[in-house]
Amino acid sequence: MSILIDGKSTAQKCNSILKDSINELVQKGNRHPKLTVIQVGNVPASSLYIRNKMRACERVGILFEHITFEADVTQSELLKTIEQLNHNEIVDGILIQLPLPKHINEDEIISAIAPEKDADGFNPITLGHVMLNTSDIFPGTPKGIVRLLEEYQIPIEGANIVVVGRSNIVGKPVASMLTNKSATVTVCHSKTKNLAEITKRADILIVAIGRANFITKDFVNEKTTIIDVGINKVNDKFCGDVDFENVKDIVHAITPVPGGVGPMTISSLLDNVFKLYTKKIEQ
Amino acid sequence: MSILIDGKSTAQKCNSILKDSINELVQKGNRHPKLTVIQVGNVPASSLYIRNKMRACERVGILFEHITFEADVTQSELLKTIEQLNHNEIVDGILIQLPLPKHINEDEIISAIAPEKDADGFNPITLGHVMLNTSDIFPGTPKGIVRLLEEYQIPIEGANIVVVGRSNIVGKPVASMLTNKSATVTVCHSKTKNLAEITKRADILIVAIGRANFITKDFVNEKTTIIDVGINKVNDKFCGDVDFENVKDIVHAITPVPGGVGPMTISSLLDNVFKLYTKKIEQ
Repeated sequence: MSILIDGKSTAQKCNSILKDSINELVQKGNRHPKLTVIQVGNVPASSLYIRNKMRACERVGILFEHITFEADVTQSELLKTIEQLNHNEIVDGILIQLPLPKHINEDEIISAIAPEKDADGFNPITLGHVMLNTSDIFPGTPKGIVRLLEEYQIPIEGANIVVVGRSNIVGKPVASMLTNKSATVTVCHSKTKNLAEITKRADILIVAIGRANFITKDFVNEKTTIIDVGINKVNDKFCGDVDFENVKDIVHAITPVPGGVGPMTISSLLDNVFKLYTKKIEQ
Repeated sequence: MSILIDGKSTAQKCNSILKDSINELVQKGNRHPKLTVIQVGNVPASSLYIRNKMRACERVGILFEHITFEADVTQSELLKTIEQLNHNEIVDGILIQLPLPKHINEDEIISAIAPEKDADGFNPITLGHVMLNTSDIFPGTPKGIVRLLEEYQIPIEGANIVVVGRSNIVGKPVASMLTNKSATVTVCHSKTKNLAEITKRADILIVAIGRANFITKDFVNEKTTIIDVGINKVNDKFCGDVDFENVKDIVHAITPVPGGVGPMTISSLLDNVFKLYTKKIEQ
């Protein structure tokens, strides 16, 4: 068996440190940090994700506010709420649970969140700073991936890293972040030719395409560290984008699904809220 | 001899089309577009670049304003001027000639330019949108590179593109743009191991590192299209990052230096100003 990269325990460790940091600031007389999550409609998956975020916040001492709208809310109502939250001094982070209903312009909504409250790190301004290496707020999953690699001391500088998937929330920002950390990064996707040939050369392979068990043993080498971002449901069981059972013993290290990147994503969200909070209370 | 990618004539062609478009709008009673360039100090290279931009603007019918400051101008004076220009209705594009003196916070100055007047495409908001594929304004050199590839019908989708250099103004944005155009992009830099091995696999090789004649024939294959962004001065002659003389006959296509990417960068700047202008007059 290769090294199993345990996202759950790493996240717990990060969260425990975060809890202490928050506690220390509160003991000094500061208010608690606060995250406000906006939900539109009641998609069950979204409700589940929000509940997980709420519990995580509560555990570390971040106040959690959950604002809900009916699925037929208008663009302007949402924008008005965000505008109010942007000006609400005791709200440190704002998060819009995605996806939004089709009639809502998602880009405009995400861009409306003030960068100094951008808990998810999806605002174009935040992402521009991510590209420029001038941000300390990062989208949760990419940030979680980098923290996992660092925790397990997988060398990033000079590493040949292949990212499969070019989404705005995982593939593109993680590629930027790792380039800034001096990895040699290749971004692959559905139009990539000879994918296996490219992934086989990877020191680190990050997969975020949402296709169950897509990466088989033909895509890896024995030195590869695999970060599996996929969460797919097959026969009522969750699995990643990597054929874990057949790959796990022939690579250097691998994240399981669940228990890999998932917990790190939430932990990184909490850390974003904390960073936004400390900047505000230091003002 | 391989295909010589002629940036000069391509830029002239683009500029000629642009001139007609501007002329048409002016004939309809619209004002001319206007670019304002801010120069701090009098670095000779900057003065030369600005003169080139001025001439290019004049040729296509873009009004050109040149604001100069002494090298000891303060941050707040610069910010004040940018703020005024942001609110000046007849200024369509603002450009800060870089580099700025050491005592000036360049990031803050660039970020102060309103995105709707960001002629250079260096503002973090613009770059965030570039990453997200929601921008129609792009930094000049990356945009010039893409236009050259398109003009010469070098396939981008599915191509294996290697970018050497990860600067904020060339390497990182061009990688994002080409990923969004469905190329498989690898970004290499000073920490990359086995560089020649990686570049040799490239269908398209974009080099922007500022090291004269660095890319020799050991770095290419016979199918490679080379885009050489470097402008280096050796023995009073300009040369690129690619050893042009020894490489030109053994690759598929190559840009010369000068006369390759350079003219396309200015042409793309003009096009940015035009795009910003049309959005304003359409309001």
